[in-house]
Amino acid sequence: MAPGAKKGILERLDAGEIVLGDGGFVFALEKRGYVKAGPWTPEAAAEHPEAVRQLHREFLRAGSNVMQTFTFYASDDKLENRGNTMRFSGQQINEAACDLAREVANEGDALVAGGVSQTPSYLSCKSENDVKAIFKKQIDVFVKKDVDFLIAEYFEHVEEAEWAVQVLKSTGKPVAATLCIGPDGDLNGVSPGVCAVKLVQAGAHIVGINCHFDPMTCVKTVKMMKEGVEKAGLKAHYMCQPLAYHTPDCNCQGFIDLPEFPFSLEPRILTRWDMQKYAREAYNVGIRYIGGCCGFEPYHVRALAEELAPERGILPKGSEKHGLWGSGLEMHTKPWVRARARRDYWENLKPASGRPFCPAMANPDGWGVTKGHADLMQQKEATSKDQLKLLFDKASKSH
Amino acid sequence: MAPGAKKGILERLDAGEIVLGDGGFVFALEKRGYVKAGPWTPEAAAEHPEAVRQLHREFLRAGSNVMQTFTFYASDDKLENRGNTMRFSGQQINEAACDLAREVANEGDALVAGGVSQTPSYLSCKSENDVKAIFKKQIDVFVKKDVDFLIAEYFEHVEEAEWAVQVLKSTGKPVAATLCIGPDGDLNGVSPGVCAVKLVQAGAHIVGINCHFDPMTCVKTVKMMKEGVEKAGLKAHYMCQPLAYHTPDCNCQGFIDLPEFPFSLEPRILTRWDMQKYAREAYNVGIRYIGGCCGFEPYHVRALAEELAPERGILPKGSEKHGLWGSGLEMHTKPWVRARARRDYWENLKPASGRPFCPAMANPDGWGVTKGHADLMQQKEATSKDQLKLLFDKASKSH
Amino acid sequence: MAPGAKKGILERLDAGEIVLGDGGFVFALEKRGYVKAGPWTPEAAAEHPEAVRQLHREFLRAGSNVMQTFTFYASDDKLENRGNTMRFSGQQINEAACDLAREVANEGDALVAGGVSQTPSYLSCKSENDVKAIFKKQIDVFVKKDVDFLIAEYFEHVEEAEWAVQVLKSTGKPVAATLCIGPDGDLNGVSPGVCAVKLVQAGAHIVGINCHFDPMTCVKTVKMMKEGVEKAGLKAHYMCQPLAYHTPDCNCQGFIDLPEFPFSLEPRILTRWDMQKYAREAYNVGIRYIGGCCGFEPYHVRALAEELAPERGILPKGSEKHGLWGSGLEMHTKPWVRARARRDYWENLKPASGRPFCPAMANPDGWGVTKGHADLMQQKEATSKDQLKLLFDKASKSH
Amino acid sequence: MAPGAKKGILERLDAGEIVLGDGGFVFALEKRGYVKAGPWTPEAAAEHPEAVRQLHREFLRAGSNVMQTFTFYASDDKLENRGNTMRFSGQQINEAACDLAREVANEGDALVAGGVSQTPSYLSCKSENDVKAIFKKQIDVFVKKDVDFLIAEYFEHVEEAEWAVQVLKSTGKPVAATLCIGPDGDLNGVSPGVCAVKLVQAGAHIVGINCHFDPMTCVKTVKMMKEGVEKAGLKAHYMCQPLAYHTPDCNCQGFIDLPEFPFSLEPRILTRWDMQKYAREAYNVGIRYIGGCCGFEPYHVRALAEELAPERGILPKGSEKHGLWGSGLEMHTKPWVRARARRDYWENLKPASGRPFCPAMANPDGWGVTKGHADLMQQKEATSKDQLKLLFDKASKSH
Repeated sequence: MAPGAKKGILERLDAGEIVLGDGGFVFALEKRGYVKAGPWTPEAAAEHPEAVRQLHREFLRAGSNVMQTFTFYASDDKLENRGNTMRFSGQQINEAACDLAREVANEGDALVAGGVSQTPSYLSCKSENDVKAIFKKQIDVFVKKDVDFLIAEYFEHVEEAEWAVQVLKSTGKPVAATLCIGPDGDLNGVSPGVCAVKLVQAGAHIVGINCHFDPMTCVKTVKMMKEGVEKAGLKAHYMCQPLAYHTPDCNCQGFIDLPEFPFSLEPRILTRWDMQKYAREAYNVGIRYIGGCCGFEPYHVRALAEELAPERGILPKGSEKHGLWGSGLEMHTKPWVRARARRDYWENLKPASGRPFCPAMANPDGWGVTKGHADLMQQKEATSKDQLKLLFDKASKSH
Repeated sequence: MAPGAKKGILERLDAGEIVLGDGGFVFALEKRGYVKAGPWTPEAAAEHPEAVRQLHREFLRAGSNVMQTFTFYASDDKLENRGNTMRFSGQQINEAACDLAREVANEGDALVAGGVSQTPSYLSCKSENDVKAIFKKQIDVFVKKDVDFLIAEYFEHVEEAEWAVQVLKSTGKPVAATLCIGPDGDLNGVSPGVCAVKLVQAGAHIVGINCHFDPMTCVKTVKMMKEGVEKAGLKAHYMCQPLAYHTPDCNCQGFIDLPEFPFSLEPRILTRWDMQKYAREAYNVGIRYIGGCCGFEPYHVRALAEELAPERGILPKGSEKHGLWGSGLEMHTKPWVRARARRDYWENLKPASGRPFCPAMANPDGWGVTKGHADLMQQKEATSKDQLKLLFDKASKSH
Repeated sequence: MAPGAKKGILERLDAGEIVLGDGGFVFALEKRGYVKAGPWTPEAAAEHPEAVRQLHREFLRAGSNVMQTFTFYASDDKLENRGNTMRFSGQQINEAACDLAREVANEGDALVAGGVSQTPSYLSCKSENDVKAIFKKQIDVFVKKDVDFLIAEYFEHVEEAEWAVQVLKSTGKPVAATLCIGPDGDLNGVSPGVCAVKLVQAGAHIVGINCHFDPMTCVKTVKMMKEGVEKAGLKAHYMCQPLAYHTPDCNCQGFIDLPEFPFSLEPRILTRWDMQKYAREAYNVGIRYIGGCCGFEPYHVRALAEELAPERGILPKGSEKHGLWGSGLEMHTKPWVRARARRDYWENLKPASGRPFCPAMANPDGWGVTKGHADLMQQKEATSKDQLKLLFDKASKSH
Repeated sequence: MAPGAKKGILERLDAGEIVLGDGGFVFALEKRGYVKAGPWTPEAAAEHPEAVRQLHREFLRAGSNVMQTFTFYASDDKLENRGNTMRFSGQQINEAACDLAREVANEGDALVAGGVSQTPSYLSCKSENDVKAIFKKQIDVFVKKDVDFLIAEYFEHVEEAEWAVQVLKSTGKPVAATLCIGPDGDLNGVSPGVCAVKLVQAGAHIVGINCHFDPMTCVKTVKMMKEGVEKAGLKAHYMCQPLAYHTPDCNCQGFIDLPEFPFSLEPRILTRWDMQKYAREAYNVGIRYIGGCCGFEPYHVRALAEELAPERGILPKGSEKHGLWGSGLEMHTKPWVRARARRDYWENLKPASGRPFCPAMANPDGWGVTKGHADLMQQKEATSKDQLKLLFDKASKSH
């Protein structure tokens, strides 16, 4: 099939189709040895194209309808900020990423999306013009390489996301915009509903959430965005690309603030069955662009595709190596493992951590007391200790 | 560098070098969409060589000194047993796997090891000759493709492993043999020490453990094997290739019997810091061939390489995308995340599961009571219930 | 000291004193063998006065300033409802309870409070007059026995509590009123703030919360009540008598709906150090009547007294058998146990459950899915299973 | 019934009867405010006889057949060691304790047992004669007060226990002896089997375990003692009086070394259903004197009595306030709580801790690494850090 013949992202969504996104490349490639945690920059697109290509292929095989260019944090200010002493320029990296995404997208029915994300420039209070110039530079590559649509993703402040949308919009391509916020809103306290309205008014066709929180929290937040947009009498499509980690204990900054970030998140990884619940819940609240972010591996996306196979009428290629709710186990040698080849077994299992010395939840802010309170207590203790000792002495004698 | 110029496995071990193994391909490729859980057969070597090649490369980059051919369960009887309706014969799969391993091994300083594992024939009580014929057929391919050494791995019964070793030995190549047992011994109750002696007497140069249990349990079992061999006045090298899952709650059959096997093991995955503890412990007890099995991802092997870098005097290529004990975080934007860029932070962290509704341990055998006992109780209850009711009634009245 | 000479409850609170309540008698006496879980009726006051007297004494010794008559659920309609085949009438039980409370109160500086709680009559839609007649009957005993003040406690509906307050008010004695609700309000959805206003307007001098939720949740709810009262321009004193169980996983019905209620709540029991945090938090939000309900043992009340000793200027008699933050351990034989005789040790300890097969939280409503959703899913599954199987078959062939 | 008419302890055990012990007084009375943790001395027998009498009564009511005198740690050397500035001498305390136990025993079918436990004298290497003199002094009181039998309990060294048995034996009364050890044996490493043989040879009629470990561990240890005695061709009765705390994470010193000892053990408290499992297991291995130690409350003993009611043919008085497997809940107002009135509900429930920030197990020895190993690592790290940095720098440049 010629790439030109593919239906565009808006045609698909307008027709009520479910579009499956891909997973987060930085975390997956960090584990494979091609991305450095800390800087999180995507030079691998130029340095190790075979690794990036292979990951694209696995997501395509798992059912992804979108190949996002591996250009996260590839704005020039970010690359410099991270002490980029790499052999490749930002432009080279962005171009290589586009070529890889297109190559694999053409192997199936997938679209290519070029992505921009929040910039150090915004945080260091550069002007609207300066920040927009940063986005413009990345987008020039996306236009030259003719990606199918654009995504502004991973924004903690809706204002910067609006600026990004305005720049992306100028290309005439469809624009999606996702914030990395939770139900409490952006870092300035703007609620999800208001954020969504601002993004739609700035020109986004698709709005939603990516990264920072677990699937159920993200679905909840997108639901709040949808309610805001509908209440404002506007229209939009909705997307969700959450973490593949359970984060019930996050504060408003998301998983960055969890003590386990980024090197001990393993016990929080979602199972494929958790993913099926996510896909169903997202579908039920009206989200039609359903994908993932940090932590998602190809089998997680395949789980989304399998859960929604009845609605989509199609299974991904990767399902030839998987069975309906573990049905592949029917071929296992041991009868008690064969007995696990059924939906209710996996749906009801509460998986053990194998870590009896570890807690179920972490406290991102210390130990349940605000810092101020703790200080106060310490001070109080100092002053009252002598007094208490006197009381105890008195008590011991008087009784 | 020409492959012939490489030092062989025994030269390395005899010289006191540490040899790093690779990780388990079936689990890694299952998540990537190329292996079906249940049958667990390796037809991907022929069907999707690019995926297998890429995984080899990632382990090489992570520091592996051995590329094991992806031939697990590729004996003809197993492939037929699993209803092989694939486009490729066992011979084609085994040959393709050898070519891929050699191709990538030649990109670095790695050796190629051909592997055989336990057979359905043994379990269905075929004769020694029949079982050996099965091994012979696989080994013919390994000889033709001139692998550097051979591994008999994943045996639950030492007797079958001895037969395998005898066949492998006939090739004149170095032979390693690992059982998938724990401290309680093989499934016939033969102790690890006695198992090791039998394997050495059968001709194995390297003996140890792979799969089924977590690293610390496997190290403990290899230690018992070493003590057995030394007590018998024999000599051997030792290897360990454990799971990347915490399994403190296993019974003698290992992780197969855990309720989470194989689709909900995520909360049990070891962190890179857990891996460093494993590498150190393995080294301390005298194991010099240190690798992994199911669950190991490239970053797990890299952690072994980084822990043992002082002893090995070398860091793997993959470490250019990693820092010493999280030092890459020094470039993070948030000061409290930068503060995590140190050894004692990660070494002492007890990672939360994010799963407050899940337990820490599972009971592979039901719920802490033997089945027989439970039946007995139920019976007892039935007969004593009326009697008890009488007692209660009597009690209520008499007081 | 003559009882007549004691300061009344309102004199104390008006003077800014902290008043310590006692703990819940039904749970404590259930464990001691004198109350039957299920009916939860207080016939022990008449049947086993020595046991009730002893418990009163222990609370007095722990620092309680109030002896609540052990008359929970001792309304006639409740006693009959529970199949009261006891040797004692409701009147006898209520009178005996008053005598015991008075006897022990006179051994120290404590007041006697007569208590009424919600009635089956209200739930079965009896008229206001009928319900008030029930309260009237209990109160006649309290008036006859001349208790110091009255408490209407454990009401799930503010309307019934208002009726109770109106009846209690008619005696001319000070009236306290506590609901067993959480931050979501009463079972009709009336918010804590509005509930508090209604109770004050009905004539209560002291309002607050008892039972059903853990201390921190109850403090939070009383804080909402206080804000409601202050916003309405009214005035009141505030009290809090929570559970001694951790209940972060409760729904609006409180601990009754937890699967562990009432016979497996042990792992949730608060430590003495948890209690000190509660006392401090309650004090900080302006609560001055601080006590406990189900699960509270004498040492829990003593912990409240010790935390607030600097403010109260007094330690209870029971503290002669206790030390400041575990200081008694200084006399322990083992040095590492002696090292625990300090505040920061106990304040920071995260106590292990010793139950690796148990989760941290329960789901009072099933397993995270609403019943309706689950039904829907099951139905959907049935209809889509055949369809999915077709897809899988198709997929397997086409690839 | 006259006390003289009661069957003695040996008559009962010889006849195959089950004898139920009582629970641990020091922990129960610490919570009630009459014992100080740290010294743990029993002066309350003289100071607050009403509190001690009441606790005896509750255990009698719960089904205990033995009232142990509250004389734990009441040897003169211990009382002095603990800075006894009490108003009562050791003799007064011991005598008062005997009187209270006898008074309550006479209210039912219970025997009085006088108890001695390990002494500071033994630990400070006093001679056999000195230590025996200490025991002799306590026993003189027991003889004077004519207790029914004697118990030497809570010994960590079997040698001291043998000395105690020899002294107790001299009175002509039946002698029981229990050590506070686990399956690893006494603190000198003498195995449970050998310990038991020594105690029987010293003259004990009944041998077993008390304190320090949870019920299942204690039962297991008594089983080992029984096997030792039988193998030696000797005869004895067996008893078990464990903790009421789950301690799967103990080292050989028992719960003393758990970080939660003694003030944060709450989450480990056994439920009544756990107790029924203990009673059944103890019975099944042939233990016929079944009681409890620290943490046992009256309802725990009642649970033992209810589990063994079919075998004993009797329910305790306390069961009039309890139902068969929660049957009292049949009278609860809410239908879903009524549905819990059945055995399989409580037997299968895995109770949640309500503490998501706490782990399931503690590490009594630090965090899984021996101290020596940790030191070594730190040293190693210091020396290898520079070397590693060099490697990393080299790696970064060379690739």
